[in-house]
Amino acid sequence: MSETGSSFSETGSYTLAVDGMGGDGGSEVVVAGLAIAADRHPSARILLVGDEAKLTGLLSRYPRAAAICTIRPAGSAISMDMKPTAALRVRDSSMRLAMDAVAQGEAQGVVSAGNSGAMLALAKIVVKTLPGITRPAMAAISPTTRGDVVMLDLGANVACDWRNLVEFAVMGEAFAKAVLGLPAPTIGLLNVGSEELKGDERLRQAAEVLRGSSLAKQFHGFVEGHDITAGTTDVVVTDGFTGNVALKTGEGALKMAFTLLRQVFTSSLLGRIGYLLVRPGLERMKEWLDPRRYNGAVFVGLNGVVVKSHGGTDAEGFAAAVDVAIDMVTHRFNDGIRDRLARMGSLTTVKASPDQPQAVPAS
Amino acid sequence: MSETGSSFSETGSYTLAVDGMGGDGGSEVVVAGLAIAADRHPSARILLVGDEAKLTGLLSRYPRAAAICTIRPAGSAISMDMKPTAALRVRDSSMRLAMDAVAQGEAQGVVSAGNSGAMLALAKIVVKTLPGITRPAMAAISPTTRGDVVMLDLGANVACDWRNLVEFAVMGEAFAKAVLGLPAPTIGLLNVGSEELKGDERLRQAAEVLRGSSLAKQFHGFVEGHDITAGTTDVVVTDGFTGNVALKTGEGALKMAFTLLRQVFTSSLLGRIGYLLVRPGLERMKEWLDPRRYNGAVFVGLNGVVVKSHGGTDAEGFAAAVDVAIDMVTHRFNDGIRDRLARMGSLTTVKASPDQPQAVPAS
Repeated sequence: MSETGSSFSETGSYTLAVDGMGGDGGSEVVVAGLAIAADRHPSARILLVGDEAKLTGLLSRYPRAAAICTIRPAGSAISMDMKPTAALRVRDSSMRLAMDAVAQGEAQGVVSAGNSGAMLALAKIVVKTLPGITRPAMAAISPTTRGDVVMLDLGANVACDWRNLVEFAVMGEAFAKAVLGLPAPTIGLLNVGSEELKGDERLRQAAEVLRGSSLAKQFHGFVEGHDITAGTTDVVVTDGFTGNVALKTGEGALKMAFTLLRQVFTSSLLGRIGYLLVRPGLERMKEWLDPRRYNGAVFVGLNGVVVKSHGGTDAEGFAAAVDVAIDMVTHRFNDGIRDRLARMGSLTTVKASPDQPQAVPAS
Repeated sequence: MSETGSSFSETGSYTLAVDGMGGDGGSEVVVAGLAIAADRHPSARILLVGDEAKLTGLLSRYPRAAAICTIRPAGSAISMDMKPTAALRVRDSSMRLAMDAVAQGEAQGVVSAGNSGAMLALAKIVVKTLPGITRPAMAAISPTTRGDVVMLDLGANVACDWRNLVEFAVMGEAFAKAVLGLPAPTIGLLNVGSEELKGDERLRQAAEVLRGSSLAKQFHGFVEGHDITAGTTDVVVTDGFTGNVALKTGEGALKMAFTLLRQVFTSSLLGRIGYLLVRPGLERMKEWLDPRRYNGAVFVGLNGVVVKSHGGTDAEGFAAAVDVAIDMVTHRFNDGIRDRLARMGSLTTVKASPDQPQAVPAS
């Protein structure tokens, strides 16, 4: 099962490089996830990078995974707590070699459950930023009461200017097309109020540029925190600080709701009987909100597809991350970004109006 | 029932000025709320400001409210959509006259369900900022799985520096003492990770100052979005942009959970029977999360207590806002801030370290 040297792209199919060593669950979860992915995507080719002996042993236990995998040996692995600067210096890590495969055109995308700081740093250096994009961002899908929403940036850039936000809108729209299959996703810019004068200069400037762009018809304007779960728009654009806090706050609120619900259903005999009656519906609700269904945060704005699986996920969650990567590759996510950027013209020629009013507080 | 000219402070009690004209429900909700407040706080004195004929008529229908209220006539009212700059020019509005009563020492606090942008602007101009505080902030109480949390700023300041954040920590701690009755509230600084190097310079600087201050023992360090509902700390400090988004995102997530739950309980006969069995527990859960229980966002850092009731609330919610104002007055909230600032020394003498590392992304 060791690599033969033949190029996978000759098969007319697509190849994903998978970091076989990342994540809290280690290689076992990765290979078990690939077994699930093999059933869903039998034509996929996986370049599985990591400890050859270990991965060979695991693939012998998961023959379905073995059918689509080729192992590429790696001399080391990036630990979950390694600093990004240190990770950049390790040349033979499984994460690095997986990125190298994308940079060299052997694979169209990479999936890792490893250290996300290291992953972003390596992706920027090895896979490199897409021409026309200033900074890559982290995007993910979240549940709403009426479908799914794409949110970005979720923490790759704690400080952003208006141009970053416009680029996030471009990338978020392409992502919603490729992964959610929406023909014309709507876009909202996260703010403290929906009125035009709310927020700060960078938000007003980003909104002005989007209103004058080829995305104008899909641009909904400003949205607020509660619009995320209401599904007001298909894409919510924000800076990495706010996006990270919003994502974790929403997850925390749902966790609290489930904790309180558990008390309702376990605090009395009637509660326990009630639980048995509504269990099927509750299971569907939990499934809808299941973080594993949304596993696979994506680094967008790179010269290839780069998907980060949650470190603590299980095989089902890892398979979902592979699903996202395959959707992005087969629906030509990066071509969508390139096309849109070409239609928008150079963003550097747009100038911020000097006479904009100052920051306006929330009401 | 018209004003007699005697000073309420002579009674040895306390007086709240109440804007009788604000809120979506108008004067009726305000007066009905005061009737509930009168039962809870019979020694309170209310200076009810607004349209004399209208308020007199309402008080005749709510004799319990009439027992604690004195009407002060006002020639106009601030509409919910009036711009703050326009509101500042109206000298005889009920909101303005209520603020005037605090500025002149006739009342110790003011409660309004009106236009919050106008309220913040008027409070800054009329009630004025507390000495030692750079900028007032908006604070509120939210539910967690283990008690309540105080969050600020919720939107008064979309951009903040490290000094603002330190002052928010001081005011949030005093608020948690006065309103939640905690002897030594713990404080967290909202960030994209809990490690010391996460976030940006202003967060690291604020953390450094708090670690070296008289609040050091209560300062927990950085917290993340999910820590808000987990109740990791009693106070969560952040800038007004992030706080506003986090508050609304958390509320939105809970709303989604309840929408999905409603589907579980109504989509089948078994679900409806199950609902009947667990209804008492669900009612307790809804009560715990009831936004009315948390009504009363507070503008802190002013020379008097300024409480904003949600515009769309009902009488019970308005009464909760009055509760918050009375807690703050009787527990000498502003004295708590003054004492703490005196123990911390001048914040202006603290200098930012020039060699701090740059912004570090979330992982």
